[in-house]
Amino acid sequence: MKPLYSGIIPPMITPLTARDTLDIAGLEKLVERLVEGGVAGIFALGTTGEAPSLSYRLRRELVEHTCRFVNGRVPVLVGITDTSLVESARFTNEIADFGVAAAVTSAPFYFPAGQPELREYLEELLPELPLPLVLYNMPALTKISFHREVIEWALDQEKIIGLKDSSGDLTYFKRMVKLAAEKRPDWPVLIGPEELLAESVLAGGHGGVNGGANLHPRLYVDLYEASARDDWETARQLSAKVLDLSNRIYHVGQHGSAIIKGLKCSLSLVGICDDFMAAPFHRFHESERKIIAEHLEALGIQ
Amino acid sequence: MKPLYSGIIPPMITPLTARDTLDIAGLEKLVERLVEGGVAGIFALGTTGEAPSLSYRLRRELVEHTCRFVNGRVPVLVGITDTSLVESARFTNEIADFGVAAAVTSAPFYFPAGQPELREYLEELLPELPLPLVLYNMPALTKISFHREVIEWALDQEKIIGLKDSSGDLTYFKRMVKLAAEKRPDWPVLIGPEELLAESVLAGGHGGVNGGANLHPRLYVDLYEASARDDWETARQLSAKVLDLSNRIYHVGQHGSAIIKGLKCSLSLVGICDDFMAAPFHRFHESERKIIAEHLEALGIQ
Amino acid sequence: MKPLYSGIIPPMITPLTARDTLDIAGLEKLVERLVEGGVAGIFALGTTGEAPSLSYRLRRELVEHTCRFVNGRVPVLVGITDTSLVESARFTNEIADFGVAAAVTSAPFYFPAGQPELREYLEELLPELPLPLVLYNMPALTKISFHREVIEWALDQEKIIGLKDSSGDLTYFKRMVKLAAEKRPDWPVLIGPEELLAESVLAGGHGGVNGGANLHPRLYVDLYEASARDDWETARQLSAKVLDLSNRIYHVGQHGSAIIKGLKCSLSLVGICDDFMAAPFHRFHESERKIIAEHLEALGIQ
Amino acid sequence: MKPLYSGIIPPMITPLTARDTLDIAGLEKLVERLVEGGVAGIFALGTTGEAPSLSYRLRRELVEHTCRFVNGRVPVLVGITDTSLVESARFTNEIADFGVAAAVTSAPFYFPAGQPELREYLEELLPELPLPLVLYNMPALTKISFHREVIEWALDQEKIIGLKDSSGDLTYFKRMVKLAAEKRPDWPVLIGPEELLAESVLAGGHGGVNGGANLHPRLYVDLYEASARDDWETARQLSAKVLDLSNRIYHVGQHGSAIIKGLKCSLSLVGICDDFMAAPFHRFHESERKIIAEHLEALGIQ
Repeated sequence: MKPLYSGIIPPMITPLTARDTLDIAGLEKLVERLVEGGVAGIFALGTTGEAPSLSYRLRRELVEHTCRFVNGRVPVLVGITDTSLVESARFTNEIADFGVAAAVTSAPFYFPAGQPELREYLEELLPELPLPLVLYNMPALTKISFHREVIEWALDQEKIIGLKDSSGDLTYFKRMVKLAAEKRPDWPVLIGPEELLAESVLAGGHGGVNGGANLHPRLYVDLYEASARDDWETARQLSAKVLDLSNRIYHVGQHGSAIIKGLKCSLSLVGICDDFMAAPFHRFHESERKIIAEHLEALGIQ
Repeated sequence: MKPLYSGIIPPMITPLTARDTLDIAGLEKLVERLVEGGVAGIFALGTTGEAPSLSYRLRRELVEHTCRFVNGRVPVLVGITDTSLVESARFTNEIADFGVAAAVTSAPFYFPAGQPELREYLEELLPELPLPLVLYNMPALTKISFHREVIEWALDQEKIIGLKDSSGDLTYFKRMVKLAAEKRPDWPVLIGPEELLAESVLAGGHGGVNGGANLHPRLYVDLYEASARDDWETARQLSAKVLDLSNRIYHVGQHGSAIIKGLKCSLSLVGICDDFMAAPFHRFHESERKIIAEHLEALGIQ
Repeated sequence: MKPLYSGIIPPMITPLTARDTLDIAGLEKLVERLVEGGVAGIFALGTTGEAPSLSYRLRRELVEHTCRFVNGRVPVLVGITDTSLVESARFTNEIADFGVAAAVTSAPFYFPAGQPELREYLEELLPELPLPLVLYNMPALTKISFHREVIEWALDQEKIIGLKDSSGDLTYFKRMVKLAAEKRPDWPVLIGPEELLAESVLAGGHGGVNGGANLHPRLYVDLYEASARDDWETARQLSAKVLDLSNRIYHVGQHGSAIIKGLKCSLSLVGICDDFMAAPFHRFHESERKIIAEHLEALGIQ
Repeated sequence: MKPLYSGIIPPMITPLTARDTLDIAGLEKLVERLVEGGVAGIFALGTTGEAPSLSYRLRRELVEHTCRFVNGRVPVLVGITDTSLVESARFTNEIADFGVAAAVTSAPFYFPAGQPELREYLEELLPELPLPLVLYNMPALTKISFHREVIEWALDQEKIIGLKDSSGDLTYFKRMVKLAAEKRPDWPVLIGPEELLAESVLAGGHGGVNGGANLHPRLYVDLYEASARDDWETARQLSAKVLDLSNRIYHVGQHGSAIIKGLKCSLSLVGICDDFMAAPFHRFHESERKIIAEHLEALGIQ
């Protein structure tokens, strides 16, 4: 039995031209780049998509255009995480008809819920959703992790169809892979941090939701495929390239926003879309942009 | 020169009867209890008000009714914190005409902004707001604190009119009191944790935004007033009562939600409003409710 | 019934002239400064004393000379915290005869013990000690706090005679004051952070173990005494001076070592002792020393 | 060019029969089990060895006997981490002649040093040591990590000969592997968490310092060797066994001490040594011991 999703599902950045203004032309080019790059799906409105910083109006607009541009070629997953269950449910209902394959939620992230509360939250959310649900473990930003008991419960819910883990804790990831494999071989367990993509496949994972795939989808797809077919010589070489991309693009400037800024700046430099950032962040200054440009050249990315 | 606000401004709980359903009758009784209790204002939609867990529809409804019930007797402050600047601004514009005195914002709480980014965020938010702004320091839930340099900048903005500090770090509080006193004697610096109310006044603070004032406003008002007139013998006695209330009402049950649950349960027991909690939390079970009832009796609260 | 200790018990810095070399002449001058400044005791080998960074040989030497210089004028308390119970006990036995009044221990700080484990640790340590014991709550550096249940147990142990709290959490402090007052009115509860000295006395505390008292003991003694006799006008003025000293002396340079560096540099500038720091820290450079010198002048400290 | 060490170097538990009493017979049996199990070295006095909880007298005794029992068959590495540079250096000099191959140090763990301070600490420590030095990254217990700039400096020090990383952050591990490979192909980079052993070898690592190898050295040696020769089918099977051992042995009982307790209890059950724990921990109760016994049977470990 194959997992429902496998391969690379980029957490798509959200192209903007100004506050609350979508870069629609940029979005179209980005979607083409991803689909042509061989991705297995697109995850809109995740952390890399700056979802919590966007208005709901713009989020709807983004989903609508993304689905239109994708046009059924790959599944579109959409982040619905909110601190309010009612808003999560409302938004999911508004976008369900655009052609969305699944909703994705992490934990409500203002009040840190206890694990029983987290399970009850999902229990209450589930019937409100007109879409299947993927869980998204992101403790660095939500303050809490999905513990084993919540995942075990989730594996019994038909409507919950997979897990994305961005904890960076590969031991946790392996434990979740094992739980899923025992109960639901159709349940994909996908890794967030791209630096661990090859290792996550060795560990039994089914693919990556990797920010860098916005910029160079083929590299990540090739790395996943080499790993999945046990071609570890190739995987090692490609993994070294991914690490190099990470070292060069995600550490220019300081503060936690460096990853998204680096990606947006890179995509702007290669002519895909604007690099406007939603508040509280701002695009790179010219000096940082120059460094990114040099790094892109060194990486051979155009 | 007197600070703009001084005294007790309770962070009002949000009475609910069901998911996304306001307990309007309960709200009216609660507002009366607070105003009659001598509060200096009401702060709706803070952490104690479960704001991030509520739909925007219900938040609007709450503000509208609260302003109607208060009817100008005390200023109504409203929390507008969101992870999205656009949503914060939109909401503030929607409620400004209801008779709101000021908006209150903490830091955008999904992405932890660096301090320069936090300042820029406020700089961009300010012109979008039709109301003056109070800052709300809540690092345990927003991940970041307002550092000295941001507060120094804020003191130069006429439209920013005060600070509520819920860090629990009284040294930080004293530093901010000193900054404000030097530049803007009209700037109130208010303390969140009620256990520190008397000490915060000794430290130069101007009052409290204390959850317990929902339940027993007069106790907190009396404690503030005794402290403010340097009647420390009375203040010590009342402070012991506040600590006793805190020990009895906020530590039943586990998880971080115990404070709000304890307050809502107590208000339900004394006949003010329903104790329904917004997801991801739930009201106390009967066994916990019984303990709270006993504690209320021991505290002499009816 | 009076608490066993009350007033200011400075956490004495350890004067060094080189790695593993005590500045004996400096120590003598420092002890005189403290005793003449009116302190209620001296706490050697705490955090401010860089205890964990010193060899046991030097620690013994320091205790021996300190007791000799103090010569019974005030009680000498000595930090015995170690990650190894056996080493803590051995050291305490070695120094007991020098004239030490009490040992002081925080939690073993490599492995973070659970609360029952922490209680058992103290239970096993206690019979090994030829001295009474003061508990020292320092969660920022030991990773764990002494929770209520451990303090309640400690209050039943005759040999445990007090608590120093350096958590910076005045609500915790107040809770502990209340526990002690109910069971053991002889039990002093002393505050670490000097910025909170006045407020801690209002809260029922019995004095301070304040680093700044190394530099200006009289200021802290006066502040304590004004607070203790309910002279809050004086207390407020002196408290502002303490905050000013803290702002000027403890925030030069970066990293967590700024407080001890600032104190040692200041004591060197006023001619008391050398400012050599134990590894992993180093004394200030000339540029930082100049800033400290200016601040001392502004503070009127010679 | 081969790394100086490769394969499995167990962080040996310290067999005790009572407080400050070494279980010498147990130690001999344990050493035999490890050497016969094919380990590439033995690491005494690490975290798993409870080093910080032991007296220096016992530490010396342990090293002396360990070297005697090993008798040159494999290199013996010894943890020298202390909060005091002087004590670290003193201890290293005392044990150097017993036949120790290298000293191992993590960061001084009471005061959290800044990165420049950490580098200077190592710079001062190095000339005091009569042995080569391995760095040990253990941020969960030392509060700080060895950052890139410190490792880059370390790679230029001939006397620093490798890195053990117990951060659990495989992305960090990969970055360090890359740095080492570029500058010092002889520098082993070894992984702490055994659940990541196979993945760490794929990532370029040279082996594991894995607690479970105390109990079942052959399993870890086989897993390392399969990974090192690119036999990933075997590696996956053995890796699943390691994860199973981890799930069964390290999560009985609560608190952070569960791993060492589980190991010692297991070794006691299979007749190797006593399971006495140094304070602040205690051996398992009978009920937990029974669970461990069942798990050992399920794992086929005798």
